[in-house]
Amino acid sequence: MRYPPSIEQLMTQFRQFPGVGPKTAERFVFHLLRLGAPGMDALCDAIRRLRDAVDRCGVCGTFAEATPCATCADPRRDHTSICVVAEPGDLLAMERTNEYRGVYHVLGGLLAPIEGIGPEQLRIPALVARVSEQSTINDRQSAIREVIFAFDPTIEGETTINYLVPLLAPTGVVLSRLARGLPVGGDLEYADPVTLSDALTGRRKLRLAQSPAQQRAHAPQQHESIF
Amino acid sequence: MRYPPSIEQLMTQFRQFPGVGPKTAERFVFHLLRLGAPGMDALCDAIRRLRDAVDRCGVCGTFAEATPCATCADPRRDHTSICVVAEPGDLLAMERTNEYRGVYHVLGGLLAPIEGIGPEQLRIPALVARVSEQSTINDRQSAIREVIFAFDPTIEGETTINYLVPLLAPTGVVLSRLARGLPVGGDLEYADPVTLSDALTGRRKLRLAQSPAQQRAHAPQQHESIF
Repeated sequence: MRYPPSIEQLMTQFRQFPGVGPKTAERFVFHLLRLGAPGMDALCDAIRRLRDAVDRCGVCGTFAEATPCATCADPRRDHTSICVVAEPGDLLAMERTNEYRGVYHVLGGLLAPIEGIGPEQLRIPALVARVSEQSTINDRQSAIREVIFAFDPTIEGETTINYLVPLLAPTGVVLSRLARGLPVGGDLEYADPVTLSDALTGRRKLRLAQSPAQQRAHAPQQHESIF
Repeated sequence: MRYPPSIEQLMTQFRQFPGVGPKTAERFVFHLLRLGAPGMDALCDAIRRLRDAVDRCGVCGTFAEATPCATCADPRRDHTSICVVAEPGDLLAMERTNEYRGVYHVLGGLLAPIEGIGPEQLRIPALVARVSEQSTINDRQSAIREVIFAFDPTIEGETTINYLVPLLAPTGVVLSRLARGLPVGGDLEYADPVTLSDALTGRRKLRLAQSPAQQRAHAPQQHESIF
């Protein structure tokens, strides 16, 4: 016995969602059937609103309802620092740290030549143009001074950094990457050798504890490395 | 920093899906945004098709595109046996065994008085009416002779069985329930005492292996118990 075609078709749609298998797709369809017509209409309306309202920000490339997006248009953000991320979700993860006050550039993915994802499939030309143009501006308030690569610590992330560094180095801006090391709550005994080696290489000098007032004075440099 | 309203609204919708938390809802929305307008339209079309095409079968109560559904209308099924299940998904699970050839009755849930789910919220009156009417028909081919309760082995399942037995007993049909015992691939050492006690109480007599011809002769009774 099989499902009626309309159920099968929606299950096929849900199975393309990330992390959704046949059983979960089935549960999703039954959930909608239990909700009935009003629930299904509400979901369709929300999807249509998303389709009509959201587009990529013309500056940073994240999903937003306006161009430039709220972050790019915010005069209180530090427009001299660009954090380059793969996906809008990574941008949100950076925002949740409440540490970074600069702006962003979303590539839309990472280089993966084997899967056919080259520089032209990503927003790499736009990044190079943006950094080249804005690093030569005379206005100290808006000239880009640092580009931070915040990618997954994977082969694709490394490949993308290795590709971008020679392209951006001629602009003279500081290029940096997120530190690698032990994650909070991790277990040193079970850390893989590469992570532990990174943690050793990137070890931080310890100083006597500062007073809260001194810490506040240093706050703007919090995301700068010591090297 | 928060998401734009249209993203937030769709995330709220997805968070009502079974087993979907904030992170998964976020991934679903980004998945749709990556698909773009054609993908979102295709999903909406599938949801609207589901809304328009699927309704509950007037006989058994499962989700179907026609009433009576394919199972209820199938003359090759054994209409003298009704398997009562809580949800359409349970009906499909029974079908996957390829053992049961009778018809079904979907209650739409199980009795849960604390959550306010009483007999009137379920298709219990319809079941009682169906069994009462069809157990007194003179035609041996269509008179109901057995009602099998196939519910989750939970308190709600037990409650529902305990409620239904006195209602259906006066009709004189055989009432039965799925066997409880050790699941295939389970570990006797870690079985809970109730399950093990059920497995002991419901132990099956062993006989000398039958020839395939004898087994085939017994096949129609495969879902009958030995008691």
